[in-house]
Amino acid sequence: MIGGGQLARMTHQAAIALGQTLRVLAVSADEPAAQVSPAVVLGSHTDLEALRQVAAGASALTFDHEHVPTELLQALVAEGVNVAPPPSALVHAQDKLVMRRRLAELGAPVPRYREVASAADLDAIDALAGEIGSGAGVGLVVKASRGGYDGKGVTLTDDVAQARAAAEGYLAAGVAVLVEEKVAMRRELAALVARSPFGQGAAWPVVHTVQEDGICVEVIAPAPQLDPAVATAAEQLALRIADELGVVGVLAVELFETFDEERGVGLVVNELAMRPHNSGHWSMDGATTSQFEQHLRAVLDYPLGSTAPLAPVTVMANVLGAPTQPEMSMDERLHHLFGRLPEARVHLYGKGERPGRKIGHVNIVGAQGGSLDDEDYVADVRERAVRAAHWLSHAEWTDGWSGHE
Amino acid sequence: MIGGGQLARMTHQAAIALGQTLRVLAVSADEPAAQVSPAVVLGSHTDLEALRQVAAGASALTFDHEHVPTELLQALVAEGVNVAPPPSALVHAQDKLVMRRRLAELGAPVPRYREVASAADLDAIDALAGEIGSGAGVGLVVKASRGGYDGKGVTLTDDVAQARAAAEGYLAAGVAVLVEEKVAMRRELAALVARSPFGQGAAWPVVHTVQEDGICVEVIAPAPQLDPAVATAAEQLALRIADELGVVGVLAVELFETFDEERGVGLVVNELAMRPHNSGHWSMDGATTSQFEQHLRAVLDYPLGSTAPLAPVTVMANVLGAPTQPEMSMDERLHHLFGRLPEARVHLYGKGERPGRKIGHVNIVGAQGGSLDDEDYVADVRERAVRAAHWLSHAEWTDGWSGHE
Repeated sequence: MIGGGQLARMTHQAAIALGQTLRVLAVSADEPAAQVSPAVVLGSHTDLEALRQVAAGASALTFDHEHVPTELLQALVAEGVNVAPPPSALVHAQDKLVMRRRLAELGAPVPRYREVASAADLDAIDALAGEIGSGAGVGLVVKASRGGYDGKGVTLTDDVAQARAAAEGYLAAGVAVLVEEKVAMRRELAALVARSPFGQGAAWPVVHTVQEDGICVEVIAPAPQLDPAVATAAEQLALRIADELGVVGVLAVELFETFDEERGVGLVVNELAMRPHNSGHWSMDGATTSQFEQHLRAVLDYPLGSTAPLAPVTVMANVLGAPTQPEMSMDERLHHLFGRLPEARVHLYGKGERPGRKIGHVNIVGAQGGSLDDEDYVADVRERAVRAAHWLSHAEWTDGWSGHE
Repeated sequence: MIGGGQLARMTHQAAIALGQTLRVLAVSADEPAAQVSPAVVLGSHTDLEALRQVAAGASALTFDHEHVPTELLQALVAEGVNVAPPPSALVHAQDKLVMRRRLAELGAPVPRYREVASAADLDAIDALAGEIGSGAGVGLVVKASRGGYDGKGVTLTDDVAQARAAAEGYLAAGVAVLVEEKVAMRRELAALVARSPFGQGAAWPVVHTVQEDGICVEVIAPAPQLDPAVATAAEQLALRIADELGVVGVLAVELFETFDEERGVGLVVNELAMRPHNSGHWSMDGATTSQFEQHLRAVLDYPLGSTAPLAPVTVMANVLGAPTQPEMSMDERLHHLFGRLPEARVHLYGKGERPGRKIGHVNIVGAQGGSLDDEDYVADVRERAVRAAHWLSHAEWTDGWSGHE
């Protein structure tokens, strides 16, 4: 696996059960996966020699991020390496313009957009703004086509001049730009699927993802109050995209749920990720097969596992680094959390704490006998997950967990 | 962790989620845990220097087997190593005579027994045989007090002369002998608990363990058709033993369920293990907290996790090495299994296949909505677990999974 982050760390956990060891290409020995796997190649994902070294003799080469240059992957494929997902698929998760064009071709619902490949295209931003009009909640989203993550490389604005300036900034950095309408949405959803090279597909239930400042902070699985027809449409859309793009492994399709009086509930595709994804962390404790095992099964061309949920609802909340260093050590925080919520499933990544950095997550699996339609039941599971993650982030909570205010 | 076997391998999996790395003392680099952990000390568990090396700087020292000599552990304790469980507790899992005496002192139900420390004690075997009488199913069990596992070091016989000969054999090997009545039992149960140094205890539901040739081949969790009062008594007995012995970590109490017309259902303690145990493998997929995470939480003095089961029943079946090398590779066998049972949770240990050797296990988590009281439901889960494990063992099955007979 290219990349030594938390996704590789959790993939190694899954690999162990399959009798495998995950070899990782990490930048340094203290990266999350490098701490826990015995098979670490230190090097850069932009260095062909390092890529060759980690791929040597492996059954397949896969990714915990999208940042390996396509031409290097093509070189590896030419040398006989089993790159999964193949570069021809992966490019759709690497380049937002390639992704957007392809989805539009496939007839998938996407936001209205323009491509800005050079300064000559900047006027297209004004044209898009004119097309959108200026109703409430209308705005422009300016995205670097490559290199962004967790809200980085994305600029939201209501102002055309600001949008142009943002686009000029990305262009100056040598990156083409995607400008799109800000979709008036009800909430964000994610449809997570896996596809094997054999062509088998499997979908987990569609989830509700809650974002703050461009970072996923909470996932409710399955998404409550979701029209079953819309859920099915989202799963089928994700499976179709996986198939059309030739994905091997996990594909996350980030969606906006829209609503208007005339057309009712609708879906718009926001982004694609072609690897285990934050929106699937709930599956580690809440589904028969976790996204990490499923990714490996797909990449190794095994039949896929059951995606059935184990409970009426599972909620994942991310543990983010606090704005200031908490007084308590993580060890102390864990003590308090475990004492208070013995049912909390904690996953820590072995990362240093920096403000806003994803350093772990907590899953709460809802008790049997509850129902996704019961708002109080779902609210209780959400409250516990968010409280647990918040506690691990900050060690500050005002409900009397400790003497802290 | 002392020992690089599958228990250490699965403990490392659990350690990853807690933000930890498990350092293991392994005899060779191809042992199950040494394959998957980056922190391996190669050496023998009877070498004090190797023990010191693996313990250096660790939060705690724990075990995947019972074979470290007590005097070496005492030396480590004297040097300030946090040995968990402490040698004063562990000795009860190392020496069957120490265990049996202590349990008898505590008033725990144990089989009638005699100690044979030297040839001078051999006549005690005749005395025990006389006391037991010669009813149906009556017999003698001759056990080496130390060093046995998976049925090794145990001799069952109906014949006093054979019992004496077996005892003489163990004595000649320098090991004291425990001779006991063969308990007329209905089935074998196991009560798995954990205890933290703080004194907190937690019990998983009591399970039914199915043994063949002294090897655990199947575990049904919880044990079906078990009188709730007996289940509670078994849990309380195990928690009490953990407390009285000062256990830190997981304790497995292997039990016989007895029945006679006069006294009804009873329990007799067979053996103790003071580490994650085969009877708890179901908890990896079927309980909120697995025995491996719980062992770590106890050893690290964290509050213990919820032991609530996730389904009405979970069945574990061991994958044993086949008598003859199967035609199919394990990889091919996995393909067939995953294709047939997408819900199977497979755990492979990375071990070479030898006849009867435990090389993995499969968990099947029963579907929600079923009931432990529904014999058909339980039988179906059992059938799938046993079939899956049998398939991985032998790649031979006669129900049409493949062209094999």
